[in-house]
Amino acid sequence: MSRGNTMLKEEKVFKDPVHRYIHVRDQLIWDLIGTKEFQRLRRVRQLGTTFLTFHGAEHTRFNHSLGVYEIMRRMIEVFKGRPHWNEEDRLLCLATALLHDIGHGPFSHSFEKVFDTDHESWTRAIIMGKTEVNAVLRRMGDEFPREVSEVIEKTHPNKLVVSMISSQIDADRMDYLQRDAFYTGVSYGHFDMERILRVMRPLDDQVVIKSTGMHAVEDYIMSRYQMYWQVYFHPVTRSAEVILNKILRRAKYLYLNGFTFKQFPMHLQPFFDGDISIADYLKLDEMIIFYYFQVWEEEQDEILADLCGRFLHRRLFQYVEFNQHFIMNEWAGLQERFKAIGVDPDYYLVIDFSSDLPYDFYRPGEEEERMPIHLLMNDRKLRELSRQSDVVEAISGKKRTDHKLYYPSDILHTPGQENEKREILEILSG
Amino acid sequence: MSRGNTMLKEEKVFKDPVHRYIHVRDQLIWDLIGTKEFQRLRRVRQLGTTFLTFHGAEHTRFNHSLGVYEIMRRMIEVFKGRPHWNEEDRLLCLATALLHDIGHGPFSHSFEKVFDTDHESWTRAIIMGKTEVNAVLRRMGDEFPREVSEVIEKTHPNKLVVSMISSQIDADRMDYLQRDAFYTGVSYGHFDMERILRVMRPLDDQVVIKSTGMHAVEDYIMSRYQMYWQVYFHPVTRSAEVILNKILRRAKYLYLNGFTFKQFPMHLQPFFDGDISIADYLKLDEMIIFYYFQVWEEEQDEILADLCGRFLHRRLFQYVEFNQHFIMNEWAGLQERFKAIGVDPDYYLVIDFSSDLPYDFYRPGEEEERMPIHLLMNDRKLRELSRQSDVVEAISGKKRTDHKLYYPSDILHTPGQENEKREILEILSG
Amino acid sequence: MSRGNTMLKEEKVFKDPVHRYIHVRDQLIWDLIGTKEFQRLRRVRQLGTTFLTFHGAEHTRFNHSLGVYEIMRRMIEVFKGRPHWNEEDRLLCLATALLHDIGHGPFSHSFEKVFDTDHESWTRAIIMGKTEVNAVLRRMGDEFPREVSEVIEKTHPNKLVVSMISSQIDADRMDYLQRDAFYTGVSYGHFDMERILRVMRPLDDQVVIKSTGMHAVEDYIMSRYQMYWQVYFHPVTRSAEVILNKILRRAKYLYLNGFTFKQFPMHLQPFFDGDISIADYLKLDEMIIFYYFQVWEEEQDEILADLCGRFLHRRLFQYVEFNQHFIMNEWAGLQERFKAIGVDPDYYLVIDFSSDLPYDFYRPGEEEERMPIHLLMNDRKLRELSRQSDVVEAISGKKRTDHKLYYPSDILHTPGQENEKREILEILSG
Amino acid sequence: MSRGNTMLKEEKVFKDPVHRYIHVRDQLIWDLIGTKEFQRLRRVRQLGTTFLTFHGAEHTRFNHSLGVYEIMRRMIEVFKGRPHWNEEDRLLCLATALLHDIGHGPFSHSFEKVFDTDHESWTRAIIMGKTEVNAVLRRMGDEFPREVSEVIEKTHPNKLVVSMISSQIDADRMDYLQRDAFYTGVSYGHFDMERILRVMRPLDDQVVIKSTGMHAVEDYIMSRYQMYWQVYFHPVTRSAEVILNKILRRAKYLYLNGFTFKQFPMHLQPFFDGDISIADYLKLDEMIIFYYFQVWEEEQDEILADLCGRFLHRRLFQYVEFNQHFIMNEWAGLQERFKAIGVDPDYYLVIDFSSDLPYDFYRPGEEEERMPIHLLMNDRKLRELSRQSDVVEAISGKKRTDHKLYYPSDILHTPGQENEKREILEILSG
Repeated sequence: MSRGNTMLKEEKVFKDPVHRYIHVRDQLIWDLIGTKEFQRLRRVRQLGTTFLTFHGAEHTRFNHSLGVYEIMRRMIEVFKGRPHWNEEDRLLCLATALLHDIGHGPFSHSFEKVFDTDHESWTRAIIMGKTEVNAVLRRMGDEFPREVSEVIEKTHPNKLVVSMISSQIDADRMDYLQRDAFYTGVSYGHFDMERILRVMRPLDDQVVIKSTGMHAVEDYIMSRYQMYWQVYFHPVTRSAEVILNKILRRAKYLYLNGFTFKQFPMHLQPFFDGDISIADYLKLDEMIIFYYFQVWEEEQDEILADLCGRFLHRRLFQYVEFNQHFIMNEWAGLQERFKAIGVDPDYYLVIDFSSDLPYDFYRPGEEEERMPIHLLMNDRKLRELSRQSDVVEAISGKKRTDHKLYYPSDILHTPGQENEKREILEILSG
Repeated sequence: MSRGNTMLKEEKVFKDPVHRYIHVRDQLIWDLIGTKEFQRLRRVRQLGTTFLTFHGAEHTRFNHSLGVYEIMRRMIEVFKGRPHWNEEDRLLCLATALLHDIGHGPFSHSFEKVFDTDHESWTRAIIMGKTEVNAVLRRMGDEFPREVSEVIEKTHPNKLVVSMISSQIDADRMDYLQRDAFYTGVSYGHFDMERILRVMRPLDDQVVIKSTGMHAVEDYIMSRYQMYWQVYFHPVTRSAEVILNKILRRAKYLYLNGFTFKQFPMHLQPFFDGDISIADYLKLDEMIIFYYFQVWEEEQDEILADLCGRFLHRRLFQYVEFNQHFIMNEWAGLQERFKAIGVDPDYYLVIDFSSDLPYDFYRPGEEEERMPIHLLMNDRKLRELSRQSDVVEAISGKKRTDHKLYYPSDILHTPGQENEKREILEILSG
Repeated sequence: MSRGNTMLKEEKVFKDPVHRYIHVRDQLIWDLIGTKEFQRLRRVRQLGTTFLTFHGAEHTRFNHSLGVYEIMRRMIEVFKGRPHWNEEDRLLCLATALLHDIGHGPFSHSFEKVFDTDHESWTRAIIMGKTEVNAVLRRMGDEFPREVSEVIEKTHPNKLVVSMISSQIDADRMDYLQRDAFYTGVSYGHFDMERILRVMRPLDDQVVIKSTGMHAVEDYIMSRYQMYWQVYFHPVTRSAEVILNKILRRAKYLYLNGFTFKQFPMHLQPFFDGDISIADYLKLDEMIIFYYFQVWEEEQDEILADLCGRFLHRRLFQYVEFNQHFIMNEWAGLQERFKAIGVDPDYYLVIDFSSDLPYDFYRPGEEEERMPIHLLMNDRKLRELSRQSDVVEAISGKKRTDHKLYYPSDILHTPGQENEKREILEILSG
Repeated sequence: MSRGNTMLKEEKVFKDPVHRYIHVRDQLIWDLIGTKEFQRLRRVRQLGTTFLTFHGAEHTRFNHSLGVYEIMRRMIEVFKGRPHWNEEDRLLCLATALLHDIGHGPFSHSFEKVFDTDHESWTRAIIMGKTEVNAVLRRMGDEFPREVSEVIEKTHPNKLVVSMISSQIDADRMDYLQRDAFYTGVSYGHFDMERILRVMRPLDDQVVIKSTGMHAVEDYIMSRYQMYWQVYFHPVTRSAEVILNKILRRAKYLYLNGFTFKQFPMHLQPFFDGDISIADYLKLDEMIIFYYFQVWEEEQDEILADLCGRFLHRRLFQYVEFNQHFIMNEWAGLQERFKAIGVDPDYYLVIDFSSDLPYDFYRPGEEEERMPIHLLMNDRKLRELSRQSDVVEAISGKKRTDHKLYYPSDILHTPGQENEKREILEILSG
C-alpha cells in the first residue's frame, strides 16, 4: 500500500498552538497539504459564525484538519506493533484524517439547509473527481481515493480504521474540542488526550479503552457536553446563523423571481439553479460570500440589504425562550402583528432549536452510526462505558433540547406604531 | 469629560483567550465596538500574510484591538488614585486604545507601499470624518474625536496619555506580543504582564517602571526581540508579502495601461487612481482582496494570474541570503538570465530586507518617536533602563538587518532551457 | 472592627504558582503570616502521604492557606459595595481564611484515628490559647479570636461569612482542588474560578450563584468528583496511609506495654498518654515524625522497624478489591492463614474504605453541614443547583463507596511455607 | 551492556506536573528508583532554603531526578538511529541522569562549606559503595557502577555521554530551569525544550545544535540568566542560607568546645568529627536537620537557640548592598559597634556574595568544565553560539557579581543602647 509514497528527506514541522508541533514525514501527506483543494480550507472558518460570539474563534478548517492528522499520527504510534493493528493501514488513516473535512464549504450548516447540498457528498466528489487531491492520492494506487472516501463515509469494510476517525471518541472530536476551546478561550474542552491516546487499543473492528483510563474518558465526555452548550449552541451564534440562513434564502428567492442584482452573483448562480460542478463548489469560500454580502448591502431589495448589514456589522437578533405555550397560543398572532407593522415574519421571526445527546450506548436518533465506547477490563472482557462509570451512566441517553425565538429587537423600539410594538414586546416577554 | 458617557447597567464581558476576560463598563466603549468601522476590523487579519507560515495566526485586528483596550483598562486601574494620574483622562485612554488600529486596511504594509497610502492618516480620517465612530465619540464633546486622533498620532500635548499607547512598552505592544505568540503557538512572547502593570507608575509626561520590576521588563524586551526575528520577519512570511506586493503592482500597471479585466476591480479603482474616499477605503477588506485574487487567477495576463494562484494556493518563492557580493557581481547578470528564460525579473526576482532595533535609548532611525524606558529607583530618581540592565545594555542600539533574494524555484526546475536554468541555480547557490 | 489594623505602607506580594500573586495589604494579615504557629504549617504537607503516589504533591498547608486567603480576598472584592455584604466583616473573613487549617498536625487523618485527637478542636485551642496567633488577633478586640474560631467551627451567627469559607463551593475547596491538581500534575481540577467569583453574590445568609454561571459551577462539581477518585482516594496513597496508621498504633502499643525505646519518643509521649498541651501539639510536625520513623527503623521490635522501613522507602502494601464475598467467606480464614505463616494480621491485613458524595441537596450523611448550592435566577428567585443542571442532577445524592484489602505482597513471595503462601495468594486473587 | 536489564512487562508511568508523564520501561531504572538511597531524595528539597522566599518551591531532589531522567530518555529517542550515537550507551545515560544528584544531602551548599564535604564525592561513594543502588547497577556488569560514576564526574572517556548530562545545555539544567520556574511560579524559566530536543544532534564527542534551532537556545540562555538572579540568588534566600550556615558553625563550635547538648546530636557527630561513613551520610536528611533545629531552639546557648528560632519561624536577616566603600571604611567599625551592643558579629554581621556568568565560550572561572554550545550550520561546519547569536554575544563572558551585608534589623530596634543602635543603622543606610 505504501509503494506510491516516499519518506521526506527531512521531517517537516508545523508549529501548532494546540498540539505544539505537527510532524509530517510522508511525501504523500506533504503533497496533499499542498493541493489547491486543501489550501482552500484556509478560507473556511472552523466554527462558521461563532467568531461573532467568541472573537477568538477565527480559526479555519485548515487549522483543524492538520490537528486531526496529528492526533491520528500519534494514535498510530501507540498502535504500532500491537495485535489487531495493521501497519499497512497507516497512510489510509493519515490521508483520511487530513481530508475528512475537504468537502466543507463556507458556513456549511446554512448552505446545506438552503441549497440542499451535503458536505459529505462533496467530500467524495473532491476525492474521487478530477482534482489535485485525487491526483496525489492516486499515486498510492487506483483504488486508494475510493478507500479514503469510504472511510470518511463510514462504509469502508475496515471498521477499525473507520472508528479511528469517526466514533464517540475519535481523532476528529478530540481535535475540535481542544482546538475550539483554545481559540474561544473557554475553560471547558480540556481533557488529558495524552492519557487517552496511551490507553487506546485496537481490538478487532473498534478502538477500545483500557479500563484504567476510564476517568480520562469521563472527563472527555463532560468536556464535550460543556462545549456543546457553552460554545456550539450559544444563542448568539445561533442568532447569526439565523440571519445568514435568511440572507441566503432571500437571495435565492430574488434570483428565482427574476430580481436584477446590481452585481450579478455569478459564484452563487449554480447554487440557486441547483446545478453545481466541483469547480463551482471549490470556488465558493467565505471570502466570496462576504464579498457578496458587502455588495448586497447596497442592493435595492430592503430585506436583503438589511440582513446583510446585520450580519456584517453584527447587529443580530434578540431571542426569547420558545415553548409549548407560545406554539399553541401566540405564534399565529405574533406573525400577524409583525406583518401589521410592516416586518416580514418569514425573515424576522424565526424559531431555532438545538439538541444534543452527550453519550449514548443504544444509539437511537442522530448519533446513530456511532458505536458506544468500550472499556477493556483487566480480565480482557469489554464493558460498555456507562456500565462502569457513574457519571456517564448518569447522563447517558439524556437528550437535551432547546427552542428559541429570534427577532430584531431594535425594530421594535423605533418610532411609529408604538402601541403595536409594545404589544409585541409584551407577548415576547411572556 | 465624562458627561457624554454613562455606565452600562451591567458590565459586559468578552471571553478572550489571551487576557481571559475583557470587561466593558462604559456605554461609550460598548457603542464604539458596535460601530461598522470597528466591526470591519474582523475582516482584517492582525498579521497579514503570517497565517501562510504559522497556520494558527488567523486572528484579526478586531481581536487585537479589544486586547489593547483591556490592557489599557488594567493600567488605569493601577494608576487610579496615584499622583500624576488624572482620572479625567480615562475615557480618552480607553477610546484611543480601542481605536488605535481603526485605519488599518487589508495587508496594510503592501498596500501602503504600492498605493502610497498611510494607515495613520486613514485612522485620523475615520475618527474625524463622517463615520459611526465619529458620531459616538462626539457624544463626549466636539473636541473629543480630535483628542483621540492626536493621542494616536502622538501629537497630543498630554504626553503621559500618549506614552500609555505608544512607547517602548505600551498597551499596544504588550498585547500584540502576547497575542501573536498565543495564536502562532511559538514559545516566545511570554512575559509577566501582570507584574509589569503592577510596577508601572505615571510620572509627569511618561510612564516609568519601579526598579524592582526591571527583570520583568528585560524579559519583555527579549520577548520582543525573539518575536521579531522568529515571527514577524519570518522568511516565508516575507515571501508571501513579496508576491502580494507584486500582484498589486501588476494589477495597477495593467489598469493604468488600459488592460481589460474580465471582472472590473471596482473596489480597487480608487486606489489605482490615487483618489480614495473614506467610503472607498472602508469597503476594502481582506474578503474583497481575496475575491479579486480568485477572479484574477483566471485573467488573461499570465503574470497576474500566476501570482494570484501562488498566493491563494501557497506556492511561494524560495529565497537565498543576499549580500554585498551579489549586489556587486551577480545582480545584473541574474536579471539578464531571467529575461533570457522568459521570466520577468521585475516580478520574479525580488530583494527584500528586514531590520530591527530591539531597544534604543538615543533614538535615531526608525524608532525615533519612542522614549527610552525609565526605571524609578528607590531614591525617586530616574535611570534609563540600559544603564541598569546588563542584558538590555548588551543589545541596546544593536540594529540587525537581513537581506534576502526571492525567486520562484519551481520555474527553474521545469523542462526547457535546462542549461540556462542550471546556471541561474548555480549563481543563486553562491 | 478594623481599629486594631493598619494598612501596610506598601502592599506585600507572594508569588504563587496557582493564583500568580497573593496580595497582602493589612498589617493584621502580614503579622498572622509571621507567627510561629502559621510558619509551622510549612512543615505539614497539604496532602499527607499523597507524595508517595504523585511525586509532585510535596506542597504544604502553608502554601494552601495563603491560597485560601487570596481567594477570599478576591471574593470580597467582588462583594464590595453590594447589598447583603458588610465591609466590616472583611478582616474576619480574611483571618479565617488564613487560619482555617492552623490546627492541622502532620498526617492529621491517621493521627486523629489513632490518638483520638481532632484538628478542629486544636484550631480553636491555637486561636484562643496563649499563642502568637492569638496575640495578633486580639489587637482587633478581645472578642475577635473567638469570632474567628466560631466562623471556622461554623457556629458563628453570621452564616454568610461561614458559607464563604465552608460550603459546597467555598474559598477552601476552590483553592485545594486547583492547587492539588497543579502539584500532582493531573489534568482534572481545572475550572473557571475567575468566572465563578464574578457570578457569586452575597444574599442574606449564604453565597449564591447567578444562574448565568451555572456551567462554571457544573465544571467545578465535576472537577471535585474527579479529584476525589483520581487523587484523594488513590489506592496507593491509601496503602501508605494504612502503613502509617499501623506504625502509630504499634508505637502506642509498645509504649503502653512498657517497651524500652532506644531513643525515647518524647515528642509523642503526650499523644500516647492522651494528655496533650498546645505546646506539645505545636511541636509535632512532619519533620519530627520522620525523625522518629528513621530511628525506629532500627528499633528491636520487628513490626515497628519493618513498617517504618516500608514507609520511608516506599515499600507499600498491595491491594485487592474487598467485597461481601470476602467478608462472609474468607476473612476469618485469611487471618488464620496469616498467623500460620507468622505474619500478624492486625498489622499486615487491613481493610480500608473510601466513600464520597459529590453533591447533595438533602444533606444526609457526612456532608451534613454543607448547604446546597443555590442559583440566583433572572427573576431573583433561588433555585437549588440540581433542579437546574442535568449533569448535577444526574450525580446528585449518588454516594460511591470503595473497599480494599491491603497486604504485603512481597512477604508472600519469599522462600519458606510456599504452599501456605500460595493458598493465601489464591484467596486474594479471588 | 544490556544483559543485566530486562524490559518491564508493562510500562510504568509517573504523573509529572512539568513533563506531564515520566515513562519507565527498563527494569534497571524501575529498581533504581525503588532503592533506599533514591527514595531518600524525597527528604531533600531541590532548592534548599528557597521555599522561605517562594513558598511554592517545596519540591525535592527526587522530583527533579525523575525529570532529568525523562529528558534524557527523550533525548535518546531523538538520537536513536543517528550517526555518532551508540544505542549501547542508552542505559548508562539513563542511570546517570537518574542518579546524578544521589550524593546530595540536606542544604548541600551550607553543609559543604561548614563541614568541608563534597556532594560529588558522596555521589561516587554511594554508587560504588555497599548500597542498594550499587547492587542494582552491578547487575549490568561489574564495571557499570564505575562507568556511571565517571560520567557524573565528567572523567568518563565517552565525552558525548558526559555532555548529555553536563554541558551548558544538558538534561540536568533543562529540567531544573523549568521545574524550579514551575514550582516557584515565576514567569521566567520557560523555553521550548521540545524544539531544543528536536535540533540536538550527537556529533563525535559532544551534542551540537542544528543552527535552525538557535533562537530556542538563545531563549534558554536568557531563561537561565533570569532564573539565576530572580530565583537562585534571591537576597531573601541568601539571608536564610546565611543563618543556616551560622547555625551549623555554632553547633560545631559548641560540640568541639565541650558544650553539653540537652539532646545530643548523634546524627551530626560524624560531621563535627570529620569522620563520616556512607551510612552516617545517608541518614542525614532535611527531616533530621529540622528535628535538631527544633530541639536546639530550646538549648541554653543563646546564639544557637536564637538562630534556630529565626530559621524555623522565618525571622530572617535584613541586608544592604556591600561595596568597596564599606570594606575600606566601615567594616571594622561596624564589627566593633556590634560587639559594643552585645551582638556577636561573627554570627550576626555577614557578607555574602553571588556571581554568575550566563554563558562563556572561553571557559575561565567557575564554568571551567563546560564546553561552549556549538551550532551545526547548513554546511555541516560547527560554529560557536556567540559568534552567531547577537544576544548571546552581547552577554557572553559578562560575569556579574553582587555583594550583600546581612544583619538582624530587629535587634537594632529594641530598647536599650538606642544611640549606639542608631549609629549602626546610619552606617548601614550608607
